[in-house]
Amino acid sequence: MDLKYTEFNDDGYGLTVKVKETLVHENTPFQTVDIIETEGLGKMMLMDGLVMTSEKDEYFYHEMITHIPMISHKNPANILVIGGGDGGTVREVVKHDCVEKVTMCEIDGLAVDICKKYLPTIACELDNPKVNVVIGDGVEFIKDKKNMYDIILIDSTDPLGPGVGLFTEEFYTDVKNALKPNGIMVAQSESPIADKKEMKAMYKLLNKVFPVVKPYLGPIPTYPGGFWSWAFCSNDVKPLDYIDEKRASSISNTAKIYNIDVHKACFALPNYVKELISD
Amino acid sequence: MDLKYTEFNDDGYGLTVKVKETLVHENTPFQTVDIIETEGLGKMMLMDGLVMTSEKDEYFYHEMITHIPMISHKNPANILVIGGGDGGTVREVVKHDCVEKVTMCEIDGLAVDICKKYLPTIACELDNPKVNVVIGDGVEFIKDKKNMYDIILIDSTDPLGPGVGLFTEEFYTDVKNALKPNGIMVAQSESPIADKKEMKAMYKLLNKVFPVVKPYLGPIPTYPGGFWSWAFCSNDVKPLDYIDEKRASSISNTAKIYNIDVHKACFALPNYVKELISD
Repeated sequence: MDLKYTEFNDDGYGLTVKVKETLVHENTPFQTVDIIETEGLGKMMLMDGLVMTSEKDEYFYHEMITHIPMISHKNPANILVIGGGDGGTVREVVKHDCVEKVTMCEIDGLAVDICKKYLPTIACELDNPKVNVVIGDGVEFIKDKKNMYDIILIDSTDPLGPGVGLFTEEFYTDVKNALKPNGIMVAQSESPIADKKEMKAMYKLLNKVFPVVKPYLGPIPTYPGGFWSWAFCSNDVKPLDYIDEKRASSISNTAKIYNIDVHKACFALPNYVKELISD
Repeated sequence: MDLKYTEFNDDGYGLTVKVKETLVHENTPFQTVDIIETEGLGKMMLMDGLVMTSEKDEYFYHEMITHIPMISHKNPANILVIGGGDGGTVREVVKHDCVEKVTMCEIDGLAVDICKKYLPTIACELDNPKVNVVIGDGVEFIKDKKNMYDIILIDSTDPLGPGVGLFTEEFYTDVKNALKPNGIMVAQSESPIADKKEMKAMYKLLNKVFPVVKPYLGPIPTYPGGFWSWAFCSNDVKPLDYIDEKRASSISNTAKIYNIDVHKACFALPNYVKELISD
């Protein structure tokens, strides 16, 4: 059987993947979750029919969302991940020895179970004693948390379906209040190529809430447009104000992407991205 | 009719584009050339069935291959483009006022005619009085040129079909000899994600010939892997030794991508790219 999966963006182009077989097709209370065995990218997870991650290229996303803020902080000890049910972000967070506690708040418990079973190289640290997995709605979870976290990572799906509440002014305000002084939030902020409208709307909201809002960029071969953005937000920390060189060097030793050069370079914005977020 | 075009890479994934109609399907003496009208990317040109350029995303490639070397040179006056029959690279070159003469040596005259007719926003400067279009084999053209060019841009297809001679030690040696002192060659050097083997082989050859060989990187949404590399090569000029700030600022005023930040950032290499070109 000649099986292929294609995800089109609004401009009528997108990724096609040759598929060996479908391993999981599950309707959870929140979304559909599929795990497919691909020809060249290992196992791939889809949520509501959109690519979330694949074994072969997951590091493009997980290294970038994690190490840029973690290494921009002097001593990140208490970390919150909202979403990120596949566990890849948590796996990268616990590589930093200074981390004392990671809370992952993911709405879809069944999705976490599926990832633990089918994507063990990604979900491998979810049982780490430093990690506390909370199955619940991040929007509710964050409401009463004040001045608690050094780093908050919003590892969400797109602004539709169960992730939509993670793209609101109210949520961002709660996140801001949950940060300690010198705390940093990073949120995945869509593709500057394939999701221009969504990205523009998101930065408009972020700019209302945070004094510091800066996008950074990196390629992700299996995501729409092949190129992705993350929003670096803080009350008081600017990107590149501080780079922990010792941890940067240690993380870089085993990372597939991350090094200090990449850290400094990812904040350089092409003109079309500057324009996109300017009004 | 539900028409789609898909280009798979060796790892069994790739770009799919929704197609309105096929405008040209031509067997030239060198290759097949197709122009397709796409739903969201404007007209797109394929050679031997591989995406070469599209009206909507061509600037990702043409700005990067051109402005990085041009702005790294103090006074680029005499420029050679080998390949580049769509005219996009020439269009970017003539934006630099200091340019006195551009020679474009393209093997496939019919391809040039097709681009002039169907891709006028890309081919628009091919009749500029500063531009001399030579229809011929770049490998032969370069042989007797010594100490002639400030900048040589190798805007080739992939290392197969008519482009294969542009990926040899002999050709690179001829290019090196055709450069003036402080001259720079830039060649497209494939995708670090989708063309690892080809990229590794190419840098091995380049390192045999040029004292300075440095890759730089940028996204191209419609190319394999969505992420591309170019080789910055010279006898005597290192990347970032010099940036012509006045021209950088002038080019940046109308560019969709290029600015000084991007210029400096594109030489930052992720670990997997460093590894790829290291042995």
